[in-house]
Formats: sequence, structure tokens, C-alpha cells
Amino acid sequence: MSISKVAFGRADEATAPDAIKAGFAEFIATFLFVFIGVGSVVSYNKLHPAGDMTAAGLVGIAIAHGLAIVITVAATANISGGHVNPAVTFGLMVGGQITILRGLVYWVGQLLGAALASALLKFVIVSVEPVPPHALGAGVSVMSGLVLEIVLTFSLVFVIYATAVDPKKGSIGIVAPLAIGFTVLANHFIGVPFTGASMNPARSFGPALINWTWTNHWVYWVGPLIGAAIAGLVYDGVFISTATPVAVDDY
Amino acid sequence: MSISKVAFGRADEATAPDAIKAGFAEFIATFLFVFIGVGSVVSYNKLHPAGDMTAAGLVGIAIAHGLAIVITVAATANISGGHVNPAVTFGLMVGGQITILRGLVYWVGQLLGAALASALLKFVIVSVEPVPPHALGAGVSVMSGLVLEIVLTFSLVFVIYATAVDPKKGSIGIVAPLAIGFTVLANHFIGVPFTGASMNPARSFGPALINWTWTNHWVYWVGPLIGAAIAGLVYDGVFISTATPVAVDDY
Amino acid sequence: MSISKVAFGRADEATAPDAIKAGFAEFIATFLFVFIGVGSVVSYNKLHPAGDMTAAGLVGIAIAHGLAIVITVAATANISGGHVNPAVTFGLMVGGQITILRGLVYWVGQLLGAALASALLKFVIVSVEPVPPHALGAGVSVMSGLVLEIVLTFSLVFVIYATAVDPKKGSIGIVAPLAIGFTVLANHFIGVPFTGASMNPARSFGPALINWTWTNHWVYWVGPLIGAAIAGLVYDGVFISTATPVAVDDY
Amino acid sequence: MSISKVAFGRADEATAPDAIKAGFAEFIATFLFVFIGVGSVVSYNKLHPAGDMTAAGLVGIAIAHGLAIVITVAATANISGGHVNPAVTFGLMVGGQITILRGLVYWVGQLLGAALASALLKFVIVSVEPVPPHALGAGVSVMSGLVLEIVLTFSLVFVIYATAVDPKKGSIGIVAPLAIGFTVLANHFIGVPFTGASMNPARSFGPALINWTWTNHWVYWVGPLIGAAIAGLVYDGVFISTATPVAVDDY
Repeated sequence: MSISKVAFGRADEATAPDAIKAGFAEFIATFLFVFIGVGSVVSYNKLHPAGDMTAAGLVGIAIAHGLAIVITVAATANISGGHVNPAVTFGLMVGGQITILRGLVYWVGQLLGAALASALLKFVIVSVEPVPPHALGAGVSVMSGLVLEIVLTFSLVFVIYATAVDPKKGSIGIVAPLAIGFTVLANHFIGVPFTGASMNPARSFGPALINWTWTNHWVYWVGPLIGAAIAGLVYDGVFISTATPVAVDDY
Repeated sequence: MSISKVAFGRADEATAPDAIKAGFAEFIATFLFVFIGVGSVVSYNKLHPAGDMTAAGLVGIAIAHGLAIVITVAATANISGGHVNPAVTFGLMVGGQITILRGLVYWVGQLLGAALASALLKFVIVSVEPVPPHALGAGVSVMSGLVLEIVLTFSLVFVIYATAVDPKKGSIGIVAPLAIGFTVLANHFIGVPFTGASMNPARSFGPALINWTWTNHWVYWVGPLIGAAIAGLVYDGVFISTATPVAVDDY
Repeated sequence: MSISKVAFGRADEATAPDAIKAGFAEFIATFLFVFIGVGSVVSYNKLHPAGDMTAAGLVGIAIAHGLAIVITVAATANISGGHVNPAVTFGLMVGGQITILRGLVYWVGQLLGAALASALLKFVIVSVEPVPPHALGAGVSVMSGLVLEIVLTFSLVFVIYATAVDPKKGSIGIVAPLAIGFTVLANHFIGVPFTGASMNPARSFGPALINWTWTNHWVYWVGPLIGAAIAGLVYDGVFISTATPVAVDDY
Repeated sequence: MSISKVAFGRADEATAPDAIKAGFAEFIATFLFVFIGVGSVVSYNKLHPAGDMTAAGLVGIAIAHGLAIVITVAATANISGGHVNPAVTFGLMVGGQITILRGLVYWVGQLLGAALASALLKFVIVSVEPVPPHALGAGVSVMSGLVLEIVLTFSLVFVIYATAVDPKKGSIGIVAPLAIGFTVLANHFIGVPFTGASMNPARSFGPALINWTWTNHWVYWVGPLIGAAIAGLVYDGVFISTATPVAVDDY
């Protein structure tokens, strides 16, 4: 395991047409994910003005976020690789799957998409309902929240490596968008009452920006980035790099 | 980006056996989608006579609509392309994937299917429960509803282009019916309290016809058609038309 | 459209090793489907002693039945074709996909599996909770129930023909078990408050037998069998039989 | 049917690099499954301090467990075979799909992963909420619980054999991770009020260890192991071993 695989990229990469187009796909995908995901919370709040989260509300919000990842990953997998998440881009950078320069283009697209989605929700769709930012649950320490975001994002990036990156993936690759989105979906059932189950700095960034609320916001960057990096190092180091070469016809 | 790709079609196309059979498939598919979708709302109202939407009710209605799209798209994908939605047909028309004449045959099939499903629900299955038409939620402006229907239908048609139309789709095409239906499913969690999450003029048309209730009905045509057209123009213009040619064996 | 495709089969078919093995697979699959499906209702009743169906309870029961079909169809698709339902066997008989004799072996396996599952639930697992038989909802006429079961089973068998039988199905066949199970899942959201959403005589037969309650039981045979037959006749007649021959490399 | 297929393995197998790596994959996968699964119960308890299980809570817990299996099976299928469950490893041992020595490596990885997940949940994430161990529901006899765990685990291992092991599986293998996880998901709707729907000794072991609560713990080993063994014997004996040889191009 090492981070020697991180590559800076060619100087003109960030302005190459292909990178711009991929960044534009990340912009659209992250816009849609944040619009649907945050929108599902806004809608829940409209149905339940009391505002406390119920088990039934959690089911809806988890499905909305999870399936929004399924569809945006499926829709952009063959254009940009379907990251839809700065932490995923970072985790793939650490494992040598994307250069720093191209990754920066993705980050810009993702953050702009998240900001636009949050703004559209605030100013056009919901004049009354607020756009809720991520926050730690009652009685949840910063350390607990950080560890939880690390583990949840680790699982997400681990699944991405195994089902979409690993050359051994075989036909599992066909269901990769489902596996990736289902990871986000399942993780909501543990994370929402504690941290909101972000796993995605862009998802947290949009509503924070639009509300200009930055309390503990760093947790939603540091946690996911650490978790993604660990997944990239572990999967690349243990399950890809040192793999015994196999004949092509084994897969 | 241009709409120069819109094609009128050969004069005899609308009466060609293949087009008639495809239109019949769209009729059956839209009949089943509207029967299941609207039926899930009728059933919910039977369980909850008070009539207010709860988070648990929303989960059921979202799943019913979303999976009804999964199955009708899967069932008719190889016959008609599995549109099940006049806005989808329009969005594919704008991107040059279907001619105007063939599209008109589809629209007739879709609207007849939706009307029959609503009539069957009203006169045979539910003598007591009404068949509820789409309506804007309390406090939701026409502009908000319109923008929401535009964005939600944009996401639907964008996913259709990426997973079912784009020649680059590769093995993602295998899960296209799932991705398309899951888009409808996820979008219900944001749209239901605001507009009912139509994304589909036929879905709105059937119950409106059977109730003869046309308040704001145009929103459910104009919104989806605009959203679908934008998706067709953007995806075709950015991600298909200008793509660098790739060797076949890359996929 | 005709029923001239119905074939009786060779006289020794019902005792051929392959047919017996397929019938045994249908026995196991239907046992598991009824055990999981009816079991989910029993469990719900244990959680909610009041016994009225709620929207959240409906979600769980619908998912349990739908996914039980996904997994039993997937598990037996390559052994028996994965019918798990006498109406499905009948619908495939009408379209010439299975002979009468082989179909009878399937029916025996399915009904024995459903009976064993209901008996096991009653005598071993649940000494207190009853095993609830299907019944028409309050205020639901026999005619309404019959029409609903016809339409719901039509949709199920139509999806089976399109995704698992039609030679044109192509890669859609890979997701056939999902599409078939999702049809059962979605249909529960409309059918449960009216008829219980059977679509499957074996599912209704097991609990009826164990409770010796046969009120309106015929509805759960006649409705599904008519719906399945219509689907077989329509799909086979319109979308298979008269299809223009296509070159193999089109798929 | 016989257990003559059980193989001990080569003496150095348990220390071979490939077995160690596969065991490490089982460690990570079971860690993630138990962390997400048990975590979803902890989160539910945080949302509902009263602690009684509701139908909506059951939906979330079932989805969390089921999708956690989908993603961990998908992620490790090509490394270790994706067992994530000592009973699954045992069921495959009985059918001759894995040697005893390699299976022991898997068991060590699975139990360590489950223990670490439970410890992390207890000491880092949840200082207040307890980590709940599996227990029989009110009024549920040991015999009832045992039979239920046998049947549920039988269904799980039967589906694994049919969709992931059987050479006849064909393209069904692509959706195997979905079918396997959906089995776990569906089975929760019947099992949770009675036994907690374990089907997995590691899932039960982690929280029991961390709470040092071993009441009826043997039920969660004996039941799943018996169910898995029966499934292995039946599937291997009836549907694999005695199969008529078929030409390769039939699939």
C-alpha cells in the first residue's frame, strides 16, 4: 500500500475537451443527486411540519438518496466514470485511477452542481420550507460523527473499487450502479440519526452554502475523504496491486 | 445543440404494421402503468380515509409508480422502445430518435391506455373511492410546479438517453429499465407533496379526463415536455453528437 | 390469436425424470414463496395485534411477496422455468410454452408446496397467530375482485412473456426475475385492500386449506387463470406469432 | 445426496496467500454487513426510544440488512466468493464447493469482522444506545425459533447454489448478488418478530460477544448451519449431481 500511484496529470488536461465534458456530466449528475436527495428531505418536512424524523420518513429519504445515486452513476458511468461525489473522486485519485488535474475538474463540476441544486430548491421550489444542512444528531460527538462518516464512505468507495474499477470484476460490473447506489441507500439507515449519512462533501456543501451554515461542516469533508482514501489504499494495495496475474479467459 | 434532428417520417409510417404494433404495446404499457400507479393512490385512500399523505403512504405510492415503470419499460423495450410516456416520446423526437409520425401513434396509444385505466378504476374497481387527479400542493405556485416538473422530467429523459439510447451505453443498457423506473421512483419523494410527481402527461391525463377536472392540467403537459426537450437537446448535443468516434472494441 | 397452441404432451412426460425434477423445483419454490409471503402477514399481525392494515405494513408485505418471487424465479428459472404459480403455468400453456401434462406436474408441486408452507406456519412457527386466508376487502364486490385479479395477473404474465419467453427479449432476459418479482411487488400496492393481491391460486390455496375457509376462494382461481390466459393469447398472438422474422445478429 | 463431497483441503491451504486474502475480504465484508445491519437497529432505537418494533422500522431494518448483503456479496464475489456468513460457508462445504481448511479461514475472518463491527458500534459510535443482541420474540419457543432459522437459511443457501454455484446458472449469475441479498431482505419480514431473522451466526455472534449475552445463542448457530446443510445437500444432490449432461452451447 502506498500513495505513489497519485498522478498529477498533463498540464493541459484540465482544459481538454474530454475532461470538460466529463466535468459537465459530473455537474449534471451531482445537480440531480442533490436536487433529489435534499428535495426528499424538504418534501418530508412539508408532509411532517413537526420536523422529527420517523422511521417511515427515513425509508423515503434513504430510497431517494440511494436510487438517485443508482441513476446518476448509471447515466454518467460511460462519460465521466460516474463519481457524483468529491470523496469518490479523491478515493480513485489515491488508487491511481484518475489524475489530480482531471479530479479537480470533477470537483468543480460537483460543487457547482450541488450549489445550483440547493439554490434552485431554495429560491424556486420552496419559498417556505428551508433547505436543511447536514448536522450532527443530538448527543453525537464530533469524534463519533467523524468515525461514522469514515466507515460509511469507506464502504462506498470499497464497493466502487470492487464492482467498477477492479479488472477482475467481470459481469459484476453490470450491476455496479445498483451496488454503489444501494450502498448509499443502506448506509442511510445507520447514519441519518447521527450525521445525516453524508458520505459526500458536495451533498453537504450545497445546503451549507445556501444557508451559510458551516457548523461542523469540516466533518463532512474530512470524514468522507479519509474513508475514501483508506478504501482506495486498501483495495488497490491488497486486492488489485498484488493480485496473481490471471489468464484472460478466467473471466 | 439544435432541433434539426426532428424528422417527420414517411407518410405511410403511422399506418405501417410495425408502428401499429408498437403503438399497441404503448397502449398496454401505459394502461398498466396508470392502472397500477393511480390504483396505488386509490388503495392508499381506502386504507387512510382521512386522506392526508403520510411518509409511509408516500413510500408505497413511489414504489408502485417506479416499479410499474421498470416492468412496463422492460416488457416493451424490444417492441416499441418502452416509452410509456408522451414526454419521453417527445424528448426522443427532439433528439432524432423517433419520427413525428411514429411518435403520434405512440401518443394515441399512451393516452388511450391512460384513459382506459382510469375508467376501469372508476367504474369497475372503485365505486366509492374517487380516482384522484394530479393537483398542485397547498401553497405551491404554478411557477414552482412547472419548474419542478421540468427538472424531474429532465432527469428521467436524461437517464433514458444515457442508459438506453447512447451507443456508448455498453452493458449499462442491461439495467436501463431499472435505472429508468428508479428515476421515477426516487423523484416521487421530492415531487408528490408539490405536484404529485407526474413527469408524464398520460399519467395526469387519465384521471383528469375521468373526473373532467382540468385545473392547472396544462402544467402537466408543458412542464414534462419542456424538461424532456431540454434533456434530449443537451444529451444529444453534448454527449452523443460531438463524441469522438471510438473503436467498437472499446465497449 | 388462438388456443390451437395448447399441447397435451407425450403420455410418459409426467413421469419423466426431468419433469419430476422440475416439479420438485416448483414445489420448493412455491413452498418458499408462500412461507415468506404468508409469513410476512403473520409477522405483521404479531407486531400490530389490532390487525388493521397500515401503509407501512403494506410496504413490508408487498416487498416480502415481490422479492420472494424475484428469488424463487431466479433460483428455479434454469430448472423448471420458474413459474411458482399455477396461473403462470396456465398462461404459458395457452401460449404453447408448456404441455398440459408437464403443467399438471407443476400444479401438483406448486399446490403441495403451498400447503406444506401454510401447515408449517400454522403448526410449528405460529401457535398463536392465525394464518390469514385471502378475502375480499370491506365493500368490495365479487365482480370488482374478479376484474382486479384478472388485470393484475394479466400484467404479471404479460411481463413474463416479454422478459422471459419472447425470443426477442435479448439482454432484458437477464433482469427477467427482477421484472417479474417487481410486478408482484407493485401490484400489491393496488390489490391488497381489495383482494389481497393474490395473482396466484397456490398462494390463496395454502392458507384456505389450512383454515378450511373457502369463501370466494374460486375468485382466486378464476381471476388469475383468466388474466393469465388473456396475457398468453395477446402476447403470443400479437407480439410473437406474427413477428416479422429478424436476423439473429439484430440481437 | 451424501456428504462424501466434504473435502479437508491441503495442509498448507489455510496459510496460502490466496486463502489469507480471501479471508481478509470476508473480514471486511462481514465487518461492513454487521456494522450496517446492527447499526440500522441502533439508529432505529435512537429514533424510537420506546423501543417497540413498528412496521415502518421493520422496513428500514430489512432493507439495511438485505442491501448490505447485496453490496458485500457483489464486492467480494470475485475475491472470496462473497459468503459473508459462516452458515453459507458451511453450506458450500457440505456441497463440496470449498474445503474445510479454507472454510475455517473464512470463519475466522467473518467472526473477527463481526466482533470488530460490534465493538466499534458500542465504543465509538454509540455511547448511549446499546448494541442489541438477537433474541427470541415474546412467546416464541426455542423449537419455533430453530425451525424458522432453519427454513430461512435454507432459502438463502438454496438461492446461492442456484444463482451463484450451479454451472447451469447462465446469465442469472449476473443478478446473483441481488437475488442473494433480496433473500435476506425478504426473510426479515417474517423472521424479525420471532428470532430477529439472523440466518447468519456471525451477525448474531458480534452483538452477543460485545454484550456477553449468550441466552439461546446456540439457536443462531444450530439453526442456520442445519438449514444451510440441507440446502447444500438437496441442491447439490438433486439439481447438480444427477443432472443430465448438457452441451455447453445450451447456455
